[in-house]
Amino acid sequence: MSVLIVGTTALDSIKTPNAENPRLLGGSASHAAVAASFFSPVKLVGGVGEDFPKKYVELYRRHKIDLEGLQTLPGKTFHWSGEYELNMNNRRTLATELGVIETYSPTLPKTYQTAPFVLLGNIAPALQHRVLDQMQRAKFVVADSMDLWLNIALPDLLKLLKRVDGFVLNDSEAHQLTKEDNVFTALKKIHALGPKYVIIKKGSHGSILSGPKGFFICPAYPLHKVVDPTGAGDSFVGGMMGYLATAKGSIDSNIRRAMVYGSVTASFCCEGFGLNTTTKTKRSDIEKRVKELEKLTKF
Amino acid sequence: MSVLIVGTTALDSIKTPNAENPRLLGGSASHAAVAASFFSPVKLVGGVGEDFPKKYVELYRRHKIDLEGLQTLPGKTFHWSGEYELNMNNRRTLATELGVIETYSPTLPKTYQTAPFVLLGNIAPALQHRVLDQMQRAKFVVADSMDLWLNIALPDLLKLLKRVDGFVLNDSEAHQLTKEDNVFTALKKIHALGPKYVIIKKGSHGSILSGPKGFFICPAYPLHKVVDPTGAGDSFVGGMMGYLATAKGSIDSNIRRAMVYGSVTASFCCEGFGLNTTTKTKRSDIEKRVKELEKLTKF
Repeated sequence: MSVLIVGTTALDSIKTPNAENPRLLGGSASHAAVAASFFSPVKLVGGVGEDFPKKYVELYRRHKIDLEGLQTLPGKTFHWSGEYELNMNNRRTLATELGVIETYSPTLPKTYQTAPFVLLGNIAPALQHRVLDQMQRAKFVVADSMDLWLNIALPDLLKLLKRVDGFVLNDSEAHQLTKEDNVFTALKKIHALGPKYVIIKKGSHGSILSGPKGFFICPAYPLHKVVDPTGAGDSFVGGMMGYLATAKGSIDSNIRRAMVYGSVTASFCCEGFGLNTTTKTKRSDIEKRVKELEKLTKF
Repeated sequence: MSVLIVGTTALDSIKTPNAENPRLLGGSASHAAVAASFFSPVKLVGGVGEDFPKKYVELYRRHKIDLEGLQTLPGKTFHWSGEYELNMNNRRTLATELGVIETYSPTLPKTYQTAPFVLLGNIAPALQHRVLDQMQRAKFVVADSMDLWLNIALPDLLKLLKRVDGFVLNDSEAHQLTKEDNVFTALKKIHALGPKYVIIKKGSHGSILSGPKGFFICPAYPLHKVVDPTGAGDSFVGGMMGYLATAKGSIDSNIRRAMVYGSVTASFCCEGFGLNTTTKTKRSDIEKRVKELEKLTKF
């Protein structure tokens, strides 16, 4: 089955203590779509400007991503630039140029409206609502978000949480949303806001699912070197949704394994700037790391 | 088989935003010994002052801890007082009164010198050396430490690392020791200092073992409320060593499970002040949580 993915399609300029990387392909939808494409057909929803490089359209195509829902709009592509500290944990936004994203409002092609799996990647909650309004037979809808929307669009986000099956956020966002330090208490409070499945991402410490079958403690793949964590969270949820869309059986019987696949896909994302390493990854590389993670967690 | 445990035997006064708890039984040896006692016979090595409450000697006895190596010395028992912040992650030392610990030098009873499992709990590295000097047939020796000794007794600690099989430390200490942010690279660097088994503790994020059979990602038991984390690390390593001392087979075939038992024992420690909850815990309570952790991590 296919996954519809909406989110930002952006150009990222990423500075680290050791390198500068201008205008890489980035954005939540790009990372999530490429990650999901390892497992299932992907329908991308996004808006780019007239300056969007052709090579990035080619990259999407190489991953067999359906681009009928990718609109080219008059103006410039959303551009984010940021800087990472030496330890790769703290990042600082240097500039955000919204470009075409500022007035973008997604209109879905007919063939998109019946996609059974829907990932509302990180973008303004109003746009996530707008996509959901156009879906007709969604079987499983997951939303991602970020601290920005908790700050400036909380009412929209809270309304969205009542419309989705799953919600994914990181530990600091969970703290911001619930005022809870304890991750398990935070999970409980987020369920009360609507979603049946809540996943809290903890970066290199893995992630935790709370769902109808209880908790799942999902490991992160051990990386000796993180080159650029930008997009890791999007790759995680993209990989997870891609896996879920092809797995046979119920969501409950597949979601743990889906998270592990997402976690492994995110590990490749961290090993290169932007999508550089992810796009070179093969499905067999992913399978190898999943098997390793099985061994690393067995007792 | 029995475990010899050396470390501090102390009185802890623990302040939190909600409560004050004066002169609880504490110290690395107390926490580790009670934790290990769920699994195997324990021989305690430590020094207390004349003010050491009889009820705490009784507590050790209830856990069938061999006290032949517990010396009562002229003066006062080591007393630590500290304060936790609301989120229970940051603690601040209010006062440290060394008392008898200042001049204490352990002399082991004959029956102690042949204990096959040795836990050099957190105490001055010079005293850990002194205990090790008296051991005759140690099969498996693990050392714990703390940031204080990295600061004021690093040469002693580095010498110790060449004499032990295993070393346990937390993530911030690993960073301090190796100047490495990446936990897997830090583990590699610590192996180069001597120990064949290195375990980095990450609090509520679990722990990671690096040993001859590779990495093991050990989960923490999910707790909705942490009352007092003092002694959790000591309980973890104590439980681990207690389990190892009774398990049949090689260290390599048992250490992962031993860490899970340590992790669960530490979870009980966190649920009450000092040893309050740990001492009320039954072996069956531990087994129940180990089974739960098996379910929570399966995929």
